[in-house]
Amino acid sequence: MSSISGMEDDEFSSFFESSPTLKNKEEILSKLNRFIELNSSRQGGKRIVCVTSGGTTVPLEQRCVRYIDNFSSGNRGAASTENFVNAGYAVIFLYRRGTCQPYCRSLPDDPFLECFEFPDAKNIRVHASHSEAVKMAVMDQQAAIAEGRLLKLPFSTIYEYLQMLRLIATALKDVGPCSMFYLAAAVSDFYVPWTSMTEHKIQSGSGPLDISLAQVPKMLSVLRSNWAPKAFCISFKLETDSKILIEKATKALQKYKVHAVVANELLTRKEEVVVVSNSGNVVVRRDCDNPESIVEDNLIHLLVDRHSTYIKESHT
Amino acid sequence: MSSISGMEDDEFSSFFESSPTLKNKEEILSKLNRFIELNSSRQGGKRIVCVTSGGTTVPLEQRCVRYIDNFSSGNRGAASTENFVNAGYAVIFLYRRGTCQPYCRSLPDDPFLECFEFPDAKNIRVHASHSEAVKMAVMDQQAAIAEGRLLKLPFSTIYEYLQMLRLIATALKDVGPCSMFYLAAAVSDFYVPWTSMTEHKIQSGSGPLDISLAQVPKMLSVLRSNWAPKAFCISFKLETDSKILIEKATKALQKYKVHAVVANELLTRKEEVVVVSNSGNVVVRRDCDNPESIVEDNLIHLLVDRHSTYIKESHT
Repeated sequence: MSSISGMEDDEFSSFFESSPTLKNKEEILSKLNRFIELNSSRQGGKRIVCVTSGGTTVPLEQRCVRYIDNFSSGNRGAASTENFVNAGYAVIFLYRRGTCQPYCRSLPDDPFLECFEFPDAKNIRVHASHSEAVKMAVMDQQAAIAEGRLLKLPFSTIYEYLQMLRLIATALKDVGPCSMFYLAAAVSDFYVPWTSMTEHKIQSGSGPLDISLAQVPKMLSVLRSNWAPKAFCISFKLETDSKILIEKATKALQKYKVHAVVANELLTRKEEVVVVSNSGNVVVRRDCDNPESIVEDNLIHLLVDRHSTYIKESHT
Repeated sequence: MSSISGMEDDEFSSFFESSPTLKNKEEILSKLNRFIELNSSRQGGKRIVCVTSGGTTVPLEQRCVRYIDNFSSGNRGAASTENFVNAGYAVIFLYRRGTCQPYCRSLPDDPFLECFEFPDAKNIRVHASHSEAVKMAVMDQQAAIAEGRLLKLPFSTIYEYLQMLRLIATALKDVGPCSMFYLAAAVSDFYVPWTSMTEHKIQSGSGPLDISLAQVPKMLSVLRSNWAPKAFCISFKLETDSKILIEKATKALQKYKVHAVVANELLTRKEEVVVVSNSGNVVVRRDCDNPESIVEDNLIHLLVDRHSTYIKESHT
């Protein structure tokens, strides 16, 4: 272990020690182990990807009324999950509660208002315009879960997210190069350390409020060096300023030694992304001539290919 | 107009002037006016309540990646809306996008996974255990909307919330004492003024972050004194510390001259609330001997009675 990763490990230990304990830790762990065991024992040994999705919250009070949040609909993670399942992967979907779910992208905002009708008190009918969307949300999603190809695990706070990610990474250690991390979640960079946090609701009425936030320890380094050093690892970089995007993605690639960074800009992220890696930058676009096409179709295709090469090279 | 409300009006004018403009303002206004017209022309003249629900977000960046949020599931507002509709009110439900919807309280967290099955590719079936919940979400909700008893208007930011509330209050002015505001939304006390906000994503990597937040101008005063002075007005006070709750609710009652303040504590808010008003404090509990009972059943019952008295007194 290098001295750098040792240092980051220490930083993490103190972060975790001061975090509120993860509820249902045993339950999560048992679901996780069952899922990994099932998929590792499949013929040929399954590839398993952990897709993280949605933003993490940072509580500002211990009995939390206020928190800082990161904007993320979870669309990227949900769509990518479907693509990974279609490509034969087993997916651990670590998602922010309330964000977009796999197979549910085509549902309207208010599905119970718009998708259904009751022609009489006994029978429910799906409106023709939404029948494909509902079928996908129910049939395809239930099938993926029933067949053990999809495990959904929800989080809300940065504390839950990092503790669950560590559990998953540790549980996937034996899967080695066949495991992958696809870290699409929008993780907070700043937080209020739990121990220095006020217990009760911050009172208004006494003028402006100044909040001082500490940096969240960089999880990527420790994930790469300690938690799951053999896994294929993809991180994301979102910026609103296109001028600094590629530069920041390239820096992240070098600093955290991930296998690729998916660079995306807030306004154009549904049209194109840039995959930044040591073999150069590749622009990935959605197929413009197919209105159903999404950028994740081509993105996951590219990453699955890269993962195949990585697995082959690891075995030689 | 007193000098105090004049002052607050100024504060509000500058808040609104520096806010990003409300999208779809014309569309919202036309929906609103149609809804109010329909209900005012019903026999006897309808009572109309504006129920606000969920938390407001406070963007930290103009192209918003990070924001401060207030914890609120929207359960209180959604359940209260159903009770108001049952009591014969027309309800304008001003809610935070993604929070709990009226008639949807009994649905599970992941309804498309848990409520339905497709026995074949053509027919959808509701699991018996969720049939009542789905029927309520679809039939009852659609009926309330189709009959013009429920209008749903979504918001996300504090800017949208306050601008929409002003639109609603102004549109309801002619309904006079028959209108009611039931302000259950968790509105931010602090915000970053739009004009002093950074355009792009705040960069991490340069040490801790200090945020300075200004106080949101108190909307309650101006709602009471200018926007809708004749409406019956109920505000909410949520605290995590029971010791200061009633004191703070009483202060709010006096300061904003609302007709009642519903005081609730974070941990016990589903079991009991205290209605604080000039006629004394009343503890309202849910019926413990009925597991289906919720605290909103008794709360709305009490407030509808109070509203009736208020209307009678206004006419004499």
